[in-house]
Amino acid sequence: MENSIFETLLELPFFQGMGRSDMIQIVNSLPLQTKNIPTGRNIVMQDEKCQHLIFVLKGTLRIVTRADHHLFTVSERIQGPTVIQPEALFGIYPHYRSTYQALTEASIISIPKHAALQIIASYDVFRLNLLNYLSSIIFKKQRPCWNILPTESLEQRIVRFILQHIQYPAGEKSLTVRMVDLADILNDTRINVSQSLNRMQNEGKLMLKRKEIIIPSIEKLSEYNELK
Amino acid sequence: MENSIFETLLELPFFQGMGRSDMIQIVNSLPLQTKNIPTGRNIVMQDEKCQHLIFVLKGTLRIVTRADHHLFTVSERIQGPTVIQPEALFGIYPHYRSTYQALTEASIISIPKHAALQIIASYDVFRLNLLNYLSSIIFKKQRPCWNILPTESLEQRIVRFILQHIQYPAGEKSLTVRMVDLADILNDTRINVSQSLNRMQNEGKLMLKRKEIIIPSIEKLSEYNELK
Repeated sequence: MENSIFETLLELPFFQGMGRSDMIQIVNSLPLQTKNIPTGRNIVMQDEKCQHLIFVLKGTLRIVTRADHHLFTVSERIQGPTVIQPEALFGIYPHYRSTYQALTEASIISIPKHAALQIIASYDVFRLNLLNYLSSIIFKKQRPCWNILPTESLEQRIVRFILQHIQYPAGEKSLTVRMVDLADILNDTRINVSQSLNRMQNEGKLMLKRKEIIIPSIEKLSEYNELK
Repeated sequence: MENSIFETLLELPFFQGMGRSDMIQIVNSLPLQTKNIPTGRNIVMQDEKCQHLIFVLKGTLRIVTRADHHLFTVSERIQGPTVIQPEALFGIYPHYRSTYQALTEASIISIPKHAALQIIASYDVFRLNLLNYLSSIIFKKQRPCWNILPTESLEQRIVRFILQHIQYPAGEKSLTVRMVDLADILNDTRINVSQSLNRMQNEGKLMLKRKEIIIPSIEKLSEYNELK
């Protein structure tokens, strides 16, 4: 039984590379709460204050992020194991930036902030993994600002817009937005945006529903931007 | 003399809030190199591997960031004290993302990465300051993606573009770009972009030179986006 806890922890972000004795110490000395989250329940809510470092051991999740002014919403489907926005523990706005919902029953480990700070202080590998994670997010968030090409097609600009708003570059995504607002954001006409989206639908890259664009595989959609 | 070193360190990012005895320990036990950088000399170069945590004690700097494909370049003028891209020490691309040039003689403290890791491991306040700094950058980098408004004017979109590419929301900035490329990026016509920029020049918010847009005060330019 104990063995399986260690193996599970070693699959989680930030625990990778830690020694067995360190893991035993963490499990025995710190208040790690394991919880099961029923299907359909939210684990954390967008704009809720972040007071725990939460790892998802297993389960399928939906991450939903709503834009300010509720202009559009981006959803992502991901599989555990994963960690829920550790950057929300710190900084000028220590709140979750997305809602995380359990699409199947999920099991999580929730570590109160004070205990998370103790782990970060005490374990070199964990601390370095966290610093590498935060720095990589900064790199990924700023990258799309600097690799714009002139003469991108409207398809490519639609894909760039979606890529700028997702956290994980894999799997199923959806974008809820009025066509007229998307056209506005991209500074193009409603008819042009509609034609581009229909072309992409015909090529099997996405599906159009009322006010929603469903992308079964962001990897396949990204091909528009890799062709350049 | 010792006193002035402590006062200077306490002005630097990450050292704020540290106790005097911790500071004495750091200064006495770790290889902190103080250097003077002559006017005009680069302190670090864009895409150079980051192997030091560098604090600028005093001096005026120019930060220059070149886009991929060399399509545009953004320059910022800032005053020390400051820290040079600590996020470049970690993550998937541990390289500086900008060139930092001394516009006046500058004095810096350069801490080799291994010593920086020791400080991060040993001093709670320093570590917490760094984590807050990294998380705040993540928040600031993703914010412009989520607060887009429909029906932004071309002036507002130009300002949003510039705000997305700067590190410090204060002081003098400049953008080097061909008018036709800026129009392309904003998906607008060269003539519209030219007219908007000329209006902004007439209002005293920027100055147009050949292939360069000079913004004496980004705070004043940001007013376009705050009026909404």
